Amino acid sequence: MDSVFRTHQARECTKEKIGERVTLNGWVQKRRDLGGLIFLDLRDRSGVVQIVFQPEVSPEAARLADQLRSEYVVSITGTIAARDPENVNPKMETGDIEIIGEEVHIFNPAKTPPFPIRDNSDVEEAVRLKYRYIDLRRPKMQETMLIRHRAMQSVRRFLDERGFIELETPMLTRSTPEGARDYLVPSRVHEGSFYALPQSPQLFKQLFMVAGMERYFQFARCFRDEDLRADRQPEFTQIDIETSFIPPETFLAMMEEMVATLFKETIGVDVPVPFPRMSYREAIERFGSDKPDLRFGMELVDLSDELRDSSFKVFSGTIQNGGQVKAVNVKGCAGWSRKEVDQWGKTAESLGAKGLAWLSFKEEGVKGSVAKFLTPEEIDAIAGKTKAETGDLLFFVADRPQTVANVLGELRLRLGKALNLIPENEYKFVWITEFPLLEYSEEDGRYYAMHHPFTMPLEEDIPLLDTDPGKVRAQAYDMVLNGYEIGGGSQRIYRREVQEKMFKALGITNEEAKEKFGFLLEAFEYGAPPHGGIAFGFDRIVMLLAGRSNLRECIAFPKTASATCLLTEAPSPVDEKQLEELHIKIRQPQK
Amino acid sequence: MDSVFRTHQARECTKEKIGERVTLNGWVQKRRDLGGLIFLDLRDRSGVVQIVFQPEVSPEAARLADQLRSEYVVSITGTIAARDPENVNPKMETGDIEIIGEEVHIFNPAKTPPFPIRDNSDVEEAVRLKYRYIDLRRPKMQETMLIRHRAMQSVRRFLDERGFIELETPMLTRSTPEGARDYLVPSRVHEGSFYALPQSPQLFKQLFMVAGMERYFQFARCFRDEDLRADRQPEFTQIDIETSFIPPETFLAMMEEMVATLFKETIGVDVPVPFPRMSYREAIERFGSDKPDLRFGMELVDLSDELRDSSFKVFSGTIQNGGQVKAVNVKGCAGWSRKEVDQWGKTAESLGAKGLAWLSFKEEGVKGSVAKFLTPEEIDAIAGKTKAETGDLLFFVADRPQTVANVLGELRLRLGKALNLIPENEYKFVWITEFPLLEYSEEDGRYYAMHHPFTMPLEEDIPLLDTDPGKVRAQAYDMVLNGYEIGGGSQRIYRREVQEKMFKALGITNEEAKEKFGFLLEAFEYGAPPHGGIAFGFDRIVMLLAGRSNLRECIAFPKTASATCLLTEAPSPVDEKQLEELHIKIRQPQK
Repeated sequence: MDSVFRTHQARECTKEKIGERVTLNGWVQKRRDLGGLIFLDLRDRSGVVQIVFQPEVSPEAARLADQLRSEYVVSITGTIAARDPENVNPKMETGDIEIIGEEVHIFNPAKTPPFPIRDNSDVEEAVRLKYRYIDLRRPKMQETMLIRHRAMQSVRRFLDERGFIELETPMLTRSTPEGARDYLVPSRVHEGSFYALPQSPQLFKQLFMVAGMERYFQFARCFRDEDLRADRQPEFTQIDIETSFIPPETFLAMMEEMVATLFKETIGVDVPVPFPRMSYREAIERFGSDKPDLRFGMELVDLSDELRDSSFKVFSGTIQNGGQVKAVNVKGCAGWSRKEVDQWGKTAESLGAKGLAWLSFKEEGVKGSVAKFLTPEEIDAIAGKTKAETGDLLFFVADRPQTVANVLGELRLRLGKALNLIPENEYKFVWITEFPLLEYSEEDGRYYAMHHPFTMPLEEDIPLLDTDPGKVRAQAYDMVLNGYEIGGGSQRIYRREVQEKMFKALGITNEEAKEKFGFLLEAFEYGAPPHGGIAFGFDRIVMLLAGRSNLRECIAFPKTASATCLLTEAPSPVDEKQLEELHIKIRQPQK
Repeated sequence: MDSVFRTHQARECTKEKIGERVTLNGWVQKRRDLGGLIFLDLRDRSGVVQIVFQPEVSPEAARLADQLRSEYVVSITGTIAARDPENVNPKMETGDIEIIGEEVHIFNPAKTPPFPIRDNSDVEEAVRLKYRYIDLRRPKMQETMLIRHRAMQSVRRFLDERGFIELETPMLTRSTPEGARDYLVPSRVHEGSFYALPQSPQLFKQLFMVAGMERYFQFARCFRDEDLRADRQPEFTQIDIETSFIPPETFLAMMEEMVATLFKETIGVDVPVPFPRMSYREAIERFGSDKPDLRFGMELVDLSDELRDSSFKVFSGTIQNGGQVKAVNVKGCAGWSRKEVDQWGKTAESLGAKGLAWLSFKEEGVKGSVAKFLTPEEIDAIAGKTKAETGDLLFFVADRPQTVANVLGELRLRLGKALNLIPENEYKFVWITEFPLLEYSEEDGRYYAMHHPFTMPLEEDIPLLDTDPGKVRAQAYDMVLNGYEIGGGSQRIYRREVQEKMFKALGITNEEAKEKFGFLLEAFEYGAPPHGGIAFGFDRIVMLLAGRSNLRECIAFPKTASATCLLTEAPSPVDEKQLEELHIKIRQPQK
């Protein structure tokens, strides 16, 4: 039986090996019958190779080859031969050779697959997900899974070499207060109690630091019971990292190097380090986003100074009431039709703007929705600040600063895409720093921690915790790539007096703190080192490495909104006896 | 602030660096005040180093050092100096130097820990688990976690180099019929339906083979809702491996090499390959176990031929009714007291034997419970077969073969331990092969798959599936080390006609098969390659590598039977609203 197993992979059949007898195993990609000769494309994980069966070489092999159909699993033995020059296929890696087929063994026949195994066929995603085991045979999917694999190995090697220890944390844990909804697991032993699947190993990684592990990492599966979107999966993998006794700057530099090594080793891209830094405030001001895409310009320009005293009250009134007027310069688009401009206006409104004002710098003069309300001096000042030249189009939003940022930030991205301003295969990293430590909720009339309540404030802002908590900046940092937040971390509070100030600012009493975070606070009393860390969204990194835009393409067996697509991921009903053991009942629908 | 961060780790302070000024960060292991000099042992992950504070060097540093207590987290700056020859401590890695302390910075004070941070202190496990973050500071725990880390990297590197791809499989899956009880996760979206946490990625890894991945591995977290024991955890990590198109022999050799590399790279032990093979049948016959500990002899000796016609009916009657008489030779223990022998008899009974017969070969003649029932010829024959010499003691069990194997197998292990026959630091690997494919359940009057219903029978036994299913041997293999099953795998059925025979032998109708395994069977119709794989119990491998006997010592945050030991692992109650979203209710206790 052994003799039917492969001696070579498809890609290994090169012209250096002409004359060698080889056995290949794989799937039939294509079979053609050309005047009695049977041509077979055999596919394995390494690639595709062409095999020719000639009745005069082996009538039996030719007879069997004639029976083969797409996706049959076969073993082929034959001799590598040069192709005739006119038959060389430069598009194929093995296109200068073919194999003269001598023996055929059919491991397994196959039904006709529901869609062809090739990229760029327009098969509905639902069908591809239903037959995921067939879809994963496509070259692009195989490549993505390989990139995912290589990325894991690269990061692990990097961290291992620097003394990081990979440590596993439990999946069945006590629920801790975090942002999203937990998946719950009823306990059979503890009646009426539930484990939670972890939203992140945050608590455990901080405990590892108290435990003296000093440098920890893990590829951690995390869970959030949230509704599905194309860019979100309820179970996801994060590269979870925590360190003690490292100056924050040294740590950030190490993380940059790790990511640069990852890009080099998986897709051969050189990423320059150090990454630029940008404060949260600057990112919002210039790009309307805390995850700016730096691959193109079209920055937001603040015109509040220029328009504060304008007689056009829509602008000046907004500014005087604490709002802003900002614009983006859509270079070279002064010629857009009224209809096109209106379309963008509707987009702006759908994003929350009350309207989208515009000025168009035409040869024949400045036109646009607000042209007649502004003085020539004001228009000059605007043109100066926005660097608007003849041929340019300006879009304005006047509103509360947050709305201006949201609308113009998103408009900038969509304009960039529509105008093809965003170069592919370019990787622009940036650290966003100095996040606000706290966010004020108008609704609840209190502050919430923007990251989590263990995030360290900037040393010089600690006194503000008592006086003006909203102004306190955090020692937190997000790594942003091409408009995606790929990682986020912080230095953690490890000193009791800072933690107490923090809880006070959050309006959490000592009793509440003990109730919610008691286990960690207790641990901290037994000698907590200065520590900090970061978590990277690994699925998203794979998506960017593989040049994909859909997160589902980067996970072998993703979840889908319908969950009926793939039997393996649809939950199933369980029987009464099992439920009884778990002390739970299915709830009757409320009348 | 940066200046307080470490320049060196403790272990890096060697006599080659005498005169260098260094900054160390870590925990205070011990502080002693000797006539105005303060001696500090500072511990970090790398080890311990001694620091001396002399008031004349820095009064401020000496003052601060005097305030330090056990487990304070500190930064110490000082200069490496040679110790006086009489103060050299050869037990300490850094025992030939000390650091003259010049600056002290206290990162954090610490309460007195509930137990000292050293190995071999007799602290109750419950306390150590409650304060796991302190227990993990102990050198032995740190070493175990490091071994675990290194083991993961070694296996990954090995498999990566051989073209294996690390692929992740979902944790929230549909329940599939496997041995143990599933952990269930109620779905919020699908009313009354539940996900199951995977008992193993078996289904997915076979789908990966259908998907053309060819060589897959994963460190997979698996779950079984079983009751806790010292050697079992409800969530555990397995090294999950599956391959296509590899001859089984080649695959087993590769796995041997992987494990040998692992032992070499983590604990420096040379493991000879290839591993010996032993059929299931031989293992049961010689050792009474399918996971024999080959580090010592005391094999089971079958005396059925010798005693079939004995006039001692307890023996001959058992043999004639299909039972066995077997013995183990407890070398040199003829001198045991009657009380000692009786104690072993009670042990045998507690293991299921009706009694334990014995013969003791004394200088003065053969004594023992059955001496007077056997003829001199029979005793000679027994002595010949068991190689009993003067001074030896024989224990006999006469019973059904399964009981004989269970009782004598376990007795052998306990005798080996009691008599110190089992060498430590020796690693005896063996492959157990040719497992029965099916097990007959007297109770249910039917066969069950011993591994799972996709296990391939031995090619030559396939016809027996129709005629004598109990005789069919499986293409299954367990890797056994020192009496522990550390891995188990098989070749899988990939051909439809064999699968149908298998289902028939199991008494599963086509409809049932479709209902239970439909998804996999459907996948197999689209081109399944010949494939097989293995899963290693990673936690257990770590236990053996680290020389531990308790699985909980090898997992950073294990589960415990009480689950109240560690807040982080105890499940918590959830509120009505959450339950409502999950469509479930806590069941009222039955009256």
